[in-house]
Amino acid sequence: MGKGRLEAFSDGVIAIIITIMVLEMKVPHGESLESLLPLLPVFMSYVLSFVYVGIYWNNHHHMLHATGRVSGTVLWANLHLLFWLSLFPFATGWMGENHFAPMPSALYGAVLLMAAIAYWILEQALIASEGSASVLKTAVGKDWKGKLSPLFYIIAIASTFWVQWVAQAMYVLVALIWLIPDRRIEHVLQRRET
Amino acid sequence: MGKGRLEAFSDGVIAIIITIMVLEMKVPHGESLESLLPLLPVFMSYVLSFVYVGIYWNNHHHMLHATGRVSGTVLWANLHLLFWLSLFPFATGWMGENHFAPMPSALYGAVLLMAAIAYWILEQALIASEGSASVLKTAVGKDWKGKLSPLFYIIAIASTFWVQWVAQAMYVLVALIWLIPDRRIEHVLQRRET
Amino acid sequence: MGKGRLEAFSDGVIAIIITIMVLEMKVPHGESLESLLPLLPVFMSYVLSFVYVGIYWNNHHHMLHATGRVSGTVLWANLHLLFWLSLFPFATGWMGENHFAPMPSALYGAVLLMAAIAYWILEQALIASEGSASVLKTAVGKDWKGKLSPLFYIIAIASTFWVQWVAQAMYVLVALIWLIPDRRIEHVLQRRET
Amino acid sequence: MGKGRLEAFSDGVIAIIITIMVLEMKVPHGESLESLLPLLPVFMSYVLSFVYVGIYWNNHHHMLHATGRVSGTVLWANLHLLFWLSLFPFATGWMGENHFAPMPSALYGAVLLMAAIAYWILEQALIASEGSASVLKTAVGKDWKGKLSPLFYIIAIASTFWVQWVAQAMYVLVALIWLIPDRRIEHVLQRRET
Repeated sequence: MGKGRLEAFSDGVIAIIITIMVLEMKVPHGESLESLLPLLPVFMSYVLSFVYVGIYWNNHHHMLHATGRVSGTVLWANLHLLFWLSLFPFATGWMGENHFAPMPSALYGAVLLMAAIAYWILEQALIASEGSASVLKTAVGKDWKGKLSPLFYIIAIASTFWVQWVAQAMYVLVALIWLIPDRRIEHVLQRRET
Repeated sequence: MGKGRLEAFSDGVIAIIITIMVLEMKVPHGESLESLLPLLPVFMSYVLSFVYVGIYWNNHHHMLHATGRVSGTVLWANLHLLFWLSLFPFATGWMGENHFAPMPSALYGAVLLMAAIAYWILEQALIASEGSASVLKTAVGKDWKGKLSPLFYIIAIASTFWVQWVAQAMYVLVALIWLIPDRRIEHVLQRRET
Repeated sequence: MGKGRLEAFSDGVIAIIITIMVLEMKVPHGESLESLLPLLPVFMSYVLSFVYVGIYWNNHHHMLHATGRVSGTVLWANLHLLFWLSLFPFATGWMGENHFAPMPSALYGAVLLMAAIAYWILEQALIASEGSASVLKTAVGKDWKGKLSPLFYIIAIASTFWVQWVAQAMYVLVALIWLIPDRRIEHVLQRRET
Repeated sequence: MGKGRLEAFSDGVIAIIITIMVLEMKVPHGESLESLLPLLPVFMSYVLSFVYVGIYWNNHHHMLHATGRVSGTVLWANLHLLFWLSLFPFATGWMGENHFAPMPSALYGAVLLMAAIAYWILEQALIASEGSASVLKTAVGKDWKGKLSPLFYIIAIASTFWVQWVAQAMYVLVALIWLIPDRRIEHVLQRRET
């Protein structure tokens, strides 16, 4: 079973998610610069989520690039990941409109956490469908990024009820850690070729 | 006539359907956890519809994978299926916002029923365009799943006017039956190769 | 210059247009069957537009299938067609919400007319970019459908101000004429092969 | 790393952006021609933005056509461009609904300016990833269009606070300059082949 349509469908869904998030930024009625001010937290949470969805697309791209075969389990593991990504616009909008209040920030972290877990499940499903010769398995290795992120999300969720800005700082921090694309896969692929 | 653009267009439409359903889950104005509570039935119906659209994409994927030629009739049978799928966001939103009330639940079942019939028509159109040597025909076989589902939907629609939860239970049951991807096609293809 | 991305981009835009039209059908607040009744004209105009966009996608598919090269002019002629198609959701929503009132019905006809003209321009641009050996030119031939449709739209637009139902009847009639996919192109291609 | 998915994802995002802009044109409640009148500035700004997004898609198409390899930096430079393009619907809606008032017109220019800068960064990232033999580098050459546009945008932004129509005139002018597709790349590619 080829991976072409899986990639195409995922590209479509991720492209729509990343674009409809901007619809939460409702056009204000006034024409002054001040009428834009209330939108600032919505805009900031949009930027954060845009970067996160971008990271997921990027890593999804790399992960499937290193994959040959796709099984039925992989199709559903992929849909499971897309499900949690599809909740990004809602979580982003709620957090932005409530100016990073504790509960919306915690929910945002929970959606990030679930997406991270779903990504890990997809990774395992891909490795399992490839067998012991999996390029992906070698490439991922110990995967300290993938293990550290959920931990950071959990700390962020817990922190929302004490200090407000800690959660936002951690979301930004994890995004920065991931912004560096997953060169591990590129490296292993290059090593194979040589 | 190649099947590439048919797949690409279907992927696009299904990707948009699965994603805009989430827009029915309007961001609440409050910032407390309680303000999310009224959204719970909307969320639950979203999860159900996400799984159903996922099943359709999955089976569509498998069905076209087993197909070589695409005729004009197939193009329209496919658009007919996409039409009924495009009504999922509306039916899902109406059912969710009315907390699974009888009439919205019946309409939801009716849309599921029409989509199932449209899928069956597409299957027949594909088999007809392939002729007697159709891989798909062999793969589908007696197709008990495809015959059982409409029956279940009809029972569910009828039941909404007596006991409320029966319809929901049947929608979940049919989804569970289909969650197992259509391995029949994979099997026949593998047998052919060997 | 390959036609792959032109097809992919057009598929994307047409897939979104056909799907966001359904968003004009707002989920009603009541849970009774009566609360759906006011949506009936919106639903009927949605069905009509779904068929029209389906026809455009179908013929676009066939037309580009018969094409080899794509020039800069073709890219813009294609965007011009997509522009008029992008106004379908607006025209459909306005006509449906006003129960096929004269002015919205006339505007709907005007958008249909402009899309038909844009399609004809794209056809000419494709033929011009191919030169005298154009398969498309032979296939299109006298193109009575393409010449008749704009005439029917103009009559429909004019009629809206006298008798209301004539315009709707003509829109349905033209859709029925076109529902038969453009087999001319398939025929010429087949003849070439033999 | 292949460019296929980068193109597919960009096509998806640009297709959605160009289509959801039309959603800012809300269906009016009245059925008379007069009820459409307040939408005229929204429609005009939609046309302008449609042309701009079309230009970006067109040039993006040409630019990637001339590219072979795609690096991690390119993926992020591309997402950065898509981010600014994703703000087009918001900026277009705000400018249209406020009848080209100074501040919304200035913001529109700022988004155009940022998109132009992001496009230039992507161009440089592509050239860098290709090395000294870059077809793209030769093709782009002195790139007077790319250098002139930001200058025009800055003048337009500054002018909004003195004379209102100058900014709009400049946005239209720059669009007209770019409407001529980037034939430079086609020329260099043709020269290579001969």
